Amino acid sequence: MTLETLSSGLDTIWVVLTAAMILLMEGGFALLEAGFVRSKNSVNIIMKVFADITIGTLCYFLIGFGLMHGADFLGIVGTSGFLLKGDLSHLDLNISIDAFWLFQGAFVIAVISIVSGAVAERINFRAYLLYVVLMTAFIYPIAGHWIWGGGWLSELGMQDFAGSAVIHALGGSAALAAAILIGPRKGKFSEFGSSSVALPSNLQLVSVGAFLLWFGWFGFNAGSTLQATDARIGHIAIVTMLSAASGGAVTLLYTLFRYGRSDAPSVINGSLAGLVGITAGCAFVNDYAAIIIGAVSGLLMMAATNWLEARRIDDPVGAFPVHAVSGIWGTIAVGLFATEGGLFTDGSWHLLGVQILGLTALCTWGFLLTWIAFKTINIWIPIRSTDEEEEIGLDISYHGIRATHADNEFIRIEDYSYRGDVKEMRDEMYK
Amino acid sequence: MTLETLSSGLDTIWVVLTAAMILLMEGGFALLEAGFVRSKNSVNIIMKVFADITIGTLCYFLIGFGLMHGADFLGIVGTSGFLLKGDLSHLDLNISIDAFWLFQGAFVIAVISIVSGAVAERINFRAYLLYVVLMTAFIYPIAGHWIWGGGWLSELGMQDFAGSAVIHALGGSAALAAAILIGPRKGKFSEFGSSSVALPSNLQLVSVGAFLLWFGWFGFNAGSTLQATDARIGHIAIVTMLSAASGGAVTLLYTLFRYGRSDAPSVINGSLAGLVGITAGCAFVNDYAAIIIGAVSGLLMMAATNWLEARRIDDPVGAFPVHAVSGIWGTIAVGLFATEGGLFTDGSWHLLGVQILGLTALCTWGFLLTWIAFKTINIWIPIRSTDEEEEIGLDISYHGIRATHADNEFIRIEDYSYRGDVKEMRDEMYK
Amino acid sequence: MTLETLSSGLDTIWVVLTAAMILLMEGGFALLEAGFVRSKNSVNIIMKVFADITIGTLCYFLIGFGLMHGADFLGIVGTSGFLLKGDLSHLDLNISIDAFWLFQGAFVIAVISIVSGAVAERINFRAYLLYVVLMTAFIYPIAGHWIWGGGWLSELGMQDFAGSAVIHALGGSAALAAAILIGPRKGKFSEFGSSSVALPSNLQLVSVGAFLLWFGWFGFNAGSTLQATDARIGHIAIVTMLSAASGGAVTLLYTLFRYGRSDAPSVINGSLAGLVGITAGCAFVNDYAAIIIGAVSGLLMMAATNWLEARRIDDPVGAFPVHAVSGIWGTIAVGLFATEGGLFTDGSWHLLGVQILGLTALCTWGFLLTWIAFKTINIWIPIRSTDEEEEIGLDISYHGIRATHADNEFIRIEDYSYRGDVKEMRDEMYK
Repeated sequence: MTLETLSSGLDTIWVVLTAAMILLMEGGFALLEAGFVRSKNSVNIIMKVFADITIGTLCYFLIGFGLMHGADFLGIVGTSGFLLKGDLSHLDLNISIDAFWLFQGAFVIAVISIVSGAVAERINFRAYLLYVVLMTAFIYPIAGHWIWGGGWLSELGMQDFAGSAVIHALGGSAALAAAILIGPRKGKFSEFGSSSVALPSNLQLVSVGAFLLWFGWFGFNAGSTLQATDARIGHIAIVTMLSAASGGAVTLLYTLFRYGRSDAPSVINGSLAGLVGITAGCAFVNDYAAIIIGAVSGLLMMAATNWLEARRIDDPVGAFPVHAVSGIWGTIAVGLFATEGGLFTDGSWHLLGVQILGLTALCTWGFLLTWIAFKTINIWIPIRSTDEEEEIGLDISYHGIRATHADNEFIRIEDYSYRGDVKEMRDEMYK
Repeated sequence: MTLETLSSGLDTIWVVLTAAMILLMEGGFALLEAGFVRSKNSVNIIMKVFADITIGTLCYFLIGFGLMHGADFLGIVGTSGFLLKGDLSHLDLNISIDAFWLFQGAFVIAVISIVSGAVAERINFRAYLLYVVLMTAFIYPIAGHWIWGGGWLSELGMQDFAGSAVIHALGGSAALAAAILIGPRKGKFSEFGSSSVALPSNLQLVSVGAFLLWFGWFGFNAGSTLQATDARIGHIAIVTMLSAASGGAVTLLYTLFRYGRSDAPSVINGSLAGLVGITAGCAFVNDYAAIIIGAVSGLLMMAATNWLEARRIDDPVGAFPVHAVSGIWGTIAVGLFATEGGLFTDGSWHLLGVQILGLTALCTWGFLLTWIAFKTINIWIPIRSTDEEEEIGLDISYHGIRATHADNEFIRIEDYSYRGDVKEMRDEMYK
Repeated sequence: MTLETLSSGLDTIWVVLTAAMILLMEGGFALLEAGFVRSKNSVNIIMKVFADITIGTLCYFLIGFGLMHGADFLGIVGTSGFLLKGDLSHLDLNISIDAFWLFQGAFVIAVISIVSGAVAERINFRAYLLYVVLMTAFIYPIAGHWIWGGGWLSELGMQDFAGSAVIHALGGSAALAAAILIGPRKGKFSEFGSSSVALPSNLQLVSVGAFLLWFGWFGFNAGSTLQATDARIGHIAIVTMLSAASGGAVTLLYTLFRYGRSDAPSVINGSLAGLVGITAGCAFVNDYAAIIIGAVSGLLMMAATNWLEARRIDDPVGAFPVHAVSGIWGTIAVGLFATEGGLFTDGSWHLLGVQILGLTALCTWGFLLTWIAFKTINIWIPIRSTDEEEEIGLDISYHGIRATHADNEFIRIEDYSYRGDVKEMRDEMYK
């Protein structure tokens, strides 16, 4: 046993354990989203997360990883490492390439899961599957190369430690494009401009999801060191906690004093906003900055939610406010508070400028490519569910099953496997 | 890479990972409690846990940690480390102060979450928020200093490895004070002395919660070594498992043979009681003692539950039986079974005496200060919900929302944000 | 601090953390199964998992571990280590025996939990408790000795890295024996040969369960190295992920194109099948083989589900298709794809032959001993619930409580503790 073997082993289990924690976040996404949407669409949203994990993992293995972390070509795209083959020596890892891949694979699934929430309750399932392929094989990996794969944004000095920008701002921008393009759920906005709220089907599920996400976030942020001996790990963990606490506390108190009641969905999303906000700067800002970043994330999340309502954009689980807005703020905050190079700390505008430039590039890319992707998919498969499918609920429409059933519902197996149109299936299967 | 760097890195990831596991226990608390209470109060209890995490974390950062782990003043209180500033060199850590803080911060949230269960379904939410501040900034940290911060109880030689006494017995005693002061839920005890049971709204949620708690407990106990090379880690983990198994098995078999049915809430709480019981002694007692400690914890938990019923004290989720009683027993058990200094092992009464003295101090402190805290808060904000709020349910009363909603409930956004009195809101919002 | 201390500490926390992850899988089993069965039986299935953990842990501590990992006797059985006493020096561990025990203890609970699903909704609870004792103290440990305790199968060179064979194939074969012997649920198969489906009570719970299982599986497979510096850890983790993704993707796409809808239960079980399938070979096969193994696991799982229906065998949660079939396939796949000794890689039939021989022995043992065990138990306690118990639901019949209750159900405590027959209790307690 040598010191090198030990060091490499330590780093490997650190990365594998934190990657597993990030993958558990998919359970968090699934349950958070399933609890927020109406129950007639909750199987569908869980199945979309399963599509993210299963199909997304395979696409990233086949194509995405190579584009993101392969040998750099002009700062724009990677060119090796497809199927984990080819030269990857430039990565210069202390851990095995497999462990590194697993960690990166967990990230890509998080990105696509952000979009899944914004198009909840009204997207055609087959169209969504095609988008999963495009996002995990091309859209995210190419942008990921710019900042994390040695591309032009990293050359410029952009700082995005664990992905406020490239995961959350990009994913949230893609979510916005998808939400706009696909249009609001039926009944969300009336003809005369008034807006409605679909009350969450199950806030308890939302909570389970939030706690799993919170847990996984320690893997997300601290694991991004990729090195267990990185002296910043303790610091990363504590600022992650402080920012989440701050985001939750601000929304709890704000809704209490503003509306006379602590609004549960706001508090939960406020904590998550705090987590998103600190993700870029967790290795670069101090404790106090973390508290400020979290608090502002929570408030911006609420403002953005109202902005979407006013703009008549329907984002059922708050993907844009939580991920894009807090992610953008968190990335800018690095330019303000970074102990090295921040405007408020070092008085330098340079880093802030780079952060804003990078954000512009990443958000535009995420928004635009998603727009193009869905427009293209729409030629072949209408991306919007039919009115009937939406009314019946996507669970029965696309999966032939509801989320919950009362006792004693034995039904004939022929009915369960029925392959007719949705309406007939519903009539056969459910009374 | 030196041996020292590696050792410090190893300890740091050990502490960060186990701290994350402990923080996931908050999800466990939330779901366990949400499942035990009636569903009209389950959003409220989850929001209380969010208050614990968010506000508790910030208070402990600002004030509590310094009182607990700061430079000792007369064995009574710490005096440095507020906002993690000031001299903390006396801690002599192999890990960063940040990682140490995170671990301690996870503990304080556990303490306050114990109280949250005992006052479920009838406490005023704003009053509870004030109590969170007092508990996490002052009550627990000062007592914590006595035993874990180099204070007088540690000087006396009290042994409380991971907190049966200072977390569970103190937290459970505080819970008892709160439960007595706030009085039973309406309908729990009739005028003629007979008692009623509010059946749990969702035992499946209770189970999710219990499993998350069980998982987190390995972090709680084994992580308390703060050192990955501590040779006791394997032992701590196995006795934790054996005691939990024993507590659960005893309640399962006891209720089966005594009542003709294995009572699910008892079995779940029995396992948790086994976990609480071993928390003080996990590093000090052997395997057989662990099995005994767990079994006795389970039985005492059931006896204490009956005792509360007979005393007409209403503790909806069993916070006192699970945490205080098993915690007290577990702390005493160290005095009996500790391989060094235990009465049954070394024939010495000294340790047992110290344990009992310490318990008396900690439980009295927890009970008394909580009593004073709530009495004081009550001057400003009535700590008890109004009859109407309780009847409607705290979810709508304080959060304007229920936990679950059937499909197709789009409501006007104006109604959702309504800021009138509870009754009007209910009428507007829910039919 | 020496290199040896550090190495041992690193290995210990690796094993303890992964063991905790495996124990969290019990939460996964409980929720997956509770969600699949009808809600009137969901408390019962959770209590069975609690019986697995609590009673199973104690039996394995008292007897099972010694039979499995004790000093070898003729390659058939272990003979030391009961209550962790006696000579265990032959294990030659870098970690403490306690940590090793915890990891092995987590495995035995997984085995028994597989059987628990197959007999859901119709087994007598007391009879099940007896079976837990026999399985965890004798049946699994003896077979476990053959392959993992230095017994005859390991001497022959059988390769089963983390237990596709000895955990899943054996557990799934035992599940099949139990399902056949106990017969189908009332109403599952009509007199005229047609089959029915009991729709899952709660697919959201099923999902929570699946995500916890998936998370725990990284502990299951990667932790089986028992050594943090094992260079295969990264590889094990990535093939685990790829196989799961492949199993899920195949079932998602197959049901989409074959039935016109992505079938949620199939996708979830398909991912789990992929995890089961890779469990034997995760350290021996390459990435591409993992994708193939997962895909075939998913398809075989679906075929086996149909086969059970055709044979009129009732396996409510798919224990046999998911665990036995994928486990058998995964073990055979090692003989095909192992980078050393596989038929397709090295052109050698030897390993494949050994794998098949070992599978035959393990599956026969699991099936036969379970058959004998239940036949024997049946003499004393009828293993099948009475018709009335089954109709009322096992939750009320054996545990006197339902899983969920609407608000405001305060009932007299005397009724809750009522000790008469089931029918009277139901009448007293519920309406």
